[in-house]
Amino acid sequence: MTNSSNPQQKSELKHIVVVGGGFGGIELIKRLNKKPFRITLIDKNNYHTFQPLLYQVASGGLGADSIGYPFRLIFRGHKNFKFVMAEVHQIDSEGKTLTTSAGAINYDYLVIASGSTSNYFGNASIEENSMPLKSIPEALNLRSDILQKFEDASRITDIKEKKRLLTFVVVGGGPTGVETAGALAEFKKFVVPHDYPELNVSDVSVILIEASDRLLNGMSDNAGDKAKIYLKELGVDLKLSAMVKGFDGQSITLENEAPIETKTMVWSAGVQGQIVEGLSDTSVQRSRYQTDEYLRVKGVKDVFAIGDVAKVDSEVYPKGHPMVAPVAVQQAGLLAKNLLKISAAKSELIPFVYKDKGSMATVGRNKAVVDLSFWKFGGFFAWLIWMFLHLMLLVGFRNRVVVFIDWMWSYFSYERALRLIVRKYEQD
Amino acid sequence: MTNSSNPQQKSELKHIVVVGGGFGGIELIKRLNKKPFRITLIDKNNYHTFQPLLYQVASGGLGADSIGYPFRLIFRGHKNFKFVMAEVHQIDSEGKTLTTSAGAINYDYLVIASGSTSNYFGNASIEENSMPLKSIPEALNLRSDILQKFEDASRITDIKEKKRLLTFVVVGGGPTGVETAGALAEFKKFVVPHDYPELNVSDVSVILIEASDRLLNGMSDNAGDKAKIYLKELGVDLKLSAMVKGFDGQSITLENEAPIETKTMVWSAGVQGQIVEGLSDTSVQRSRYQTDEYLRVKGVKDVFAIGDVAKVDSEVYPKGHPMVAPVAVQQAGLLAKNLLKISAAKSELIPFVYKDKGSMATVGRNKAVVDLSFWKFGGFFAWLIWMFLHLMLLVGFRNRVVVFIDWMWSYFSYERALRLIVRKYEQD
Repeated sequence: MTNSSNPQQKSELKHIVVVGGGFGGIELIKRLNKKPFRITLIDKNNYHTFQPLLYQVASGGLGADSIGYPFRLIFRGHKNFKFVMAEVHQIDSEGKTLTTSAGAINYDYLVIASGSTSNYFGNASIEENSMPLKSIPEALNLRSDILQKFEDASRITDIKEKKRLLTFVVVGGGPTGVETAGALAEFKKFVVPHDYPELNVSDVSVILIEASDRLLNGMSDNAGDKAKIYLKELGVDLKLSAMVKGFDGQSITLENEAPIETKTMVWSAGVQGQIVEGLSDTSVQRSRYQTDEYLRVKGVKDVFAIGDVAKVDSEVYPKGHPMVAPVAVQQAGLLAKNLLKISAAKSELIPFVYKDKGSMATVGRNKAVVDLSFWKFGGFFAWLIWMFLHLMLLVGFRNRVVVFIDWMWSYFSYERALRLIVRKYEQD
Repeated sequence: MTNSSNPQQKSELKHIVVVGGGFGGIELIKRLNKKPFRITLIDKNNYHTFQPLLYQVASGGLGADSIGYPFRLIFRGHKNFKFVMAEVHQIDSEGKTLTTSAGAINYDYLVIASGSTSNYFGNASIEENSMPLKSIPEALNLRSDILQKFEDASRITDIKEKKRLLTFVVVGGGPTGVETAGALAEFKKFVVPHDYPELNVSDVSVILIEASDRLLNGMSDNAGDKAKIYLKELGVDLKLSAMVKGFDGQSITLENEAPIETKTMVWSAGVQGQIVEGLSDTSVQRSRYQTDEYLRVKGVKDVFAIGDVAKVDSEVYPKGHPMVAPVAVQQAGLLAKNLLKISAAKSELIPFVYKDKGSMATVGRNKAVVDLSFWKFGGFFAWLIWMFLHLMLLVGFRNRVVVFIDWMWSYFSYERALRLIVRKYEQD
């Protein structure tokens, strides 16, 4: 590609359309920079979201702008790259066309990297009344909701209603649930005594509900046990082996347990793939695109899927790979190589093998857990590693610097300064 | 006040209720810290807004969180201080009671510092279709609107509609209008050529409309002339002595001139006091509280007004003082002293005399104008002073640091990184 601006040559380039600019989507596009393709990224937002830190936006530790970065800035200077802000409505795999809110878009190769969304397992009362935490607007809604509850509670006298307003329930003991519960407990511990003199700290409660008998399923027992100890130290009320049956906005009903009076339930107990309409049951099952080990979606041609939305054939992970960023990033790297082979009509594709480099979760200041294949540990050092890695993974130098400053600020001041109720949250 | 937590003594303290936590409101409360009063601040937001930088949030230079600061954090540790997040509906000056969305609140002294809001001079089409810039949500709406227009324009081919989408009109040649037009022109100059390869930069236009024959009325001729030169250098299309008659969302009609095809009109051509219902015509005229030179609202007892919403008797400023932050801050300082005298039943109140220390406005990088009584100048040095003073005036150390970093980032990279369309803006 010595002269990529030559329009004739340009039109001969194969057109890759990437749906979704999460970890997988942006990694793929970065890997294909300067390769002989035209690339179009379609996303409903104009920015990449760094999902692992959404809970810190919700709990007043970070600004919304610090965990999102505009796609056009990420890919500034990429040749033959185009960004389209749109919703994708339908895939026509025969006609190799997507129907989108910005019109029809043709592709030679389609990569679906549309990620995941909350899964309520068909429970309408939970879907209607709980707060999800999968996007920046949702994180801001949760922030507004929490802070409004504190404001409401600070001016009423009815003690039962006050306690209901000040009870915050997180459902799901995975990393997001553990991190959110930890952040809320720190808000109670460090912010409430100073900034809400009208309230008794003991009226505030943070409850974490998990259906299984342990936290951080998918990590080691060591990690699960440590997270439990850390959360208890922070004063989180843990309810393991507890099943949520419903939530009417006033009280949570549980199986075999007394209901919990609360107005705020954060739902992080389930995710599912974000599917685009148009493919058959061969291609899509249980809200995930079924792919072979080369990431090709089954039953269609020239369609690929990576990340949370892909269920890739694997003997090691028969139920699919974990829905986490490293899987998406590794799949993107592999797919970049395979797309080059495919477009050059080489037959030897490389199969996907996930290299699990470990996992981690943080609970609060000086408290995190890290699982590596050779070492599982927790505490201050784990927390430093967690911070360092998240800073490195953040997109955009500006965001790294500002997040670092906000973390230092919170660490030394014990404060949460990012507490604006930018827009009031009102349950529909 | 050796034992302020003694409830009996506490209830004997006179209760000052401050409506509005703008520059005037927070200055007054700071001045009255540790003085023998109970103080309640009522604001509809839970944060102070640093209005002078709203236009930078709108143009992608700063994050929303950096120009707001939570009241509870500002007044952390103040004794006998209470914050109530509520809308004030009505003043009952006989019963010394406010009706608010959080219930009735009694006062001994009431200070109205409710600031100003956009004034459309009764023009319904402008009110309905233009974008105001007086609050953080409004700044975020404008940011979303501008960025959406760029996204929309980047995928359509109809050249007339494309130009309409890319025409941004600012009405009002005061500091806000000048600064907003300058920021939009810099966006056109520095961001569009790199990040919107689909667009021709020449299709983007920024127009500033002003009814009088000069910019920055209220500042010196030198400042107005320099601002004109700077804006022209940046490529802003200036329309002086032009009167906007209406805006239907598609085209602006002007007196004696051809209409301007645009979808985005920023309205910064007028402000008016934000009045609370309940006082008579003696107290309120032309949307401002009429006060004597001691800031006492006329016709009522124990009610005071400061800042934009106050029209204070003055021979030097017969039409009222300028609606700017320094006036509010000086009035707050004076009122703190007078309230101490009044509560101690001393009769010698101090009259308000505004000390105009000068004014300034910025147009773009290295371009600002400063008027001091002894020196009027512009350019790089003025721009440095403008930045330094705004950093110092920002509330919260965290915000100062982050705004400084964002300014340095923009200065050296020529970028605007804070470009998230957090929530789509849709005209009702």
